[in-house]
Amino acid sequence: MPRALGSLSASGEPEHSQVPPGFAMLPAPSPPRTCQEPAAVRPLAAGSLSACRLQDARRLRPEERSGGPAGQVTQPAGRAWTSGCLVRLSNPHLATMKEDLLYHFSLGTGTHDFPAMFGDVKFVCVGGSPSRMSAFIKYVAAELGLGRPDEDHPNICTGTDRYAMYKAGPVLSVSHGMGVPSIAIMLHELIKLLYHARCSDVTIIRIGTSGGIGLEPGSVVITRQAVDACFRPEFEQIILGKRVVRSTDLDERLVQELMQCSSELAEFTTVVGNTMCTLDFYEGQGRLDGALCSYTEKDKQAYLHAAHAAGIRNIEMESSVFAAMCSACGLRAAVVCVTLLDRLLGDQISSPHEVLSEYQQRPQRLVSYFIKKSLGKA
Amino acid sequence: MPRALGSLSASGEPEHSQVPPGFAMLPAPSPPRTCQEPAAVRPLAAGSLSACRLQDARRLRPEERSGGPAGQVTQPAGRAWTSGCLVRLSNPHLATMKEDLLYHFSLGTGTHDFPAMFGDVKFVCVGGSPSRMSAFIKYVAAELGLGRPDEDHPNICTGTDRYAMYKAGPVLSVSHGMGVPSIAIMLHELIKLLYHARCSDVTIIRIGTSGGIGLEPGSVVITRQAVDACFRPEFEQIILGKRVVRSTDLDERLVQELMQCSSELAEFTTVVGNTMCTLDFYEGQGRLDGALCSYTEKDKQAYLHAAHAAGIRNIEMESSVFAAMCSACGLRAAVVCVTLLDRLLGDQISSPHEVLSEYQQRPQRLVSYFIKKSLGKA
Repeated sequence: MPRALGSLSASGEPEHSQVPPGFAMLPAPSPPRTCQEPAAVRPLAAGSLSACRLQDARRLRPEERSGGPAGQVTQPAGRAWTSGCLVRLSNPHLATMKEDLLYHFSLGTGTHDFPAMFGDVKFVCVGGSPSRMSAFIKYVAAELGLGRPDEDHPNICTGTDRYAMYKAGPVLSVSHGMGVPSIAIMLHELIKLLYHARCSDVTIIRIGTSGGIGLEPGSVVITRQAVDACFRPEFEQIILGKRVVRSTDLDERLVQELMQCSSELAEFTTVVGNTMCTLDFYEGQGRLDGALCSYTEKDKQAYLHAAHAAGIRNIEMESSVFAAMCSACGLRAAVVCVTLLDRLLGDQISSPHEVLSEYQQRPQRLVSYFIKKSLGKA
Repeated sequence: MPRALGSLSASGEPEHSQVPPGFAMLPAPSPPRTCQEPAAVRPLAAGSLSACRLQDARRLRPEERSGGPAGQVTQPAGRAWTSGCLVRLSNPHLATMKEDLLYHFSLGTGTHDFPAMFGDVKFVCVGGSPSRMSAFIKYVAAELGLGRPDEDHPNICTGTDRYAMYKAGPVLSVSHGMGVPSIAIMLHELIKLLYHARCSDVTIIRIGTSGGIGLEPGSVVITRQAVDACFRPEFEQIILGKRVVRSTDLDERLVQELMQCSSELAEFTTVVGNTMCTLDFYEGQGRLDGALCSYTEKDKQAYLHAAHAAGIRNIEMESSVFAAMCSACGLRAAVVCVTLLDRLLGDQISSPHEVLSEYQQRPQRLVSYFIKKSLGKA
């Protein structure tokens, strides 16, 4: 039976109901929290997280950080990941299915040998644009010395144009389209794919584009915390007509490792900051140049400055559900996005094409270097 | 200043506040309504609707309908559309911009002659998949006798892989990806494109795929009303951190015209029904086969049966924002989706590829016939 949505005590039990009429809380894989209360208590979902995730989920101590909410993590950190962690699902029904068809990938356990095709995957990189993810696999393959530099990596999802997927050695590169629903479909099927393939010790990184707040265009933001349009570290969804809220925790150790890689690369400015995930690019991000707009420049500036004060350094459209789903399935996850403009100064993305292209390669270069280093090839 | 979110009296003024703490209502192009109250009162947004839209927005009388909430409209209806209606924006800021760059189309008023390229557009058809929208333009061009049957129609948005756009005579065919955020970005830029091109009397139809409820797979559903996952005819979004609710009205006369076309074609079952628009394909639609699931088959069946009782005949992921935005900008809009499976009987889309391909052509055939007939060529 649905439970009323309320804030949580330290024990993880609801203290009091604040649910709007008509909404209730399902028993969810991640512990529920109220929409109204700040996320003071964030118990881990023991049922859905693997042991290695639990081991790695400790908070950074203040002395390990510098520069406030958006400052750079400068302390190098050793890899403390425990090996042998299988990808886990949080769905008992799948065990009863004879065959699983991943419709939007046009792949299925009845027609494809997932362990043979994907069993060696250790790094999954995802991004909105199919052509960018194709370019990434070519780049990372060359960096890792896999195949010839001019080698083509065929799209594995040839039976559909919903997503594109490429593989080179232990690296999988997958497009996810734009927005929370689009990446959520991809993640459901990707996580099932990794599970069916019996993959272990998988790190997943979103490499994307974003609008910056108070940053020089071309800066790269590594997400400390994914927050919603009200600056809360939550992902809210409606399940069977009821509001369910999940936390958007990301792996803090992985943030440190990526920041260390950026320091070693020393090619572009990189910061750690909160990332706001919105459901719309125009009104949802306070732009003044959509087909609809009912607020002023002053309203917009007030909103963006409040976001900056909350530690938000960039805005994109996928990080919250990405963090929530990866966390619920025990995947070590990070979000690395380049900023294409400073939203405090404008709305239109009007830099020349070649400038934007170079910006978009920055997260690819950083994550490629991280993979190389993780494999002992840097 | 933001107003508190509340239900509306017949005068359109808030009666009482039911806003959760932290949420307030912006002055929005469409009048606000509470999230909790049924949509008993739905005043038209005079500021954003064109005169022809107002003229066409009357409700069907009961005797013009048959078969209850999901029954077929069998009465033929004459076209009562007034000519000369320009596409309108609901954004005063755009008038101050020297140039407008439609980033996700890679088109701009400074680099492209929109009136010359698009000024003759009268019908816009949108759908998720780029290849389906390419196939559609080829099909409709042949049906209308425009160009050679084997003629290729180049993608107009060559500078990006976010969306694909094709044109044949007065018909524009545009892909929108999957989910509300993805189609919303496309619609903002499409509506601005039509505005800059000074298009008039434009009809826009989404031709898509969906999961059916209690219908034979392959049935086509013409949407009477787009509803959310709580069965409300509303589209909710967060603007500057505040919750805004817009109505999801569609053009009832257009529903009738499309239903009449289906009767004349007599090729497949077509019904008029409500369409539920969700933000997720798996948990959001009550599927049991996602990476995450915390409910039972019984819970799922109860939800889908409640949806059926509310007049919902299919579920997809774009109709609510499509209806809300088109309505706010005075575009005559309809949603025509084929059902790929009956969700009361299962979750996986496992019909053979050729069967699904034929299903997906059905909305295309219906809408193509409608266009032909509208142009006096049927």
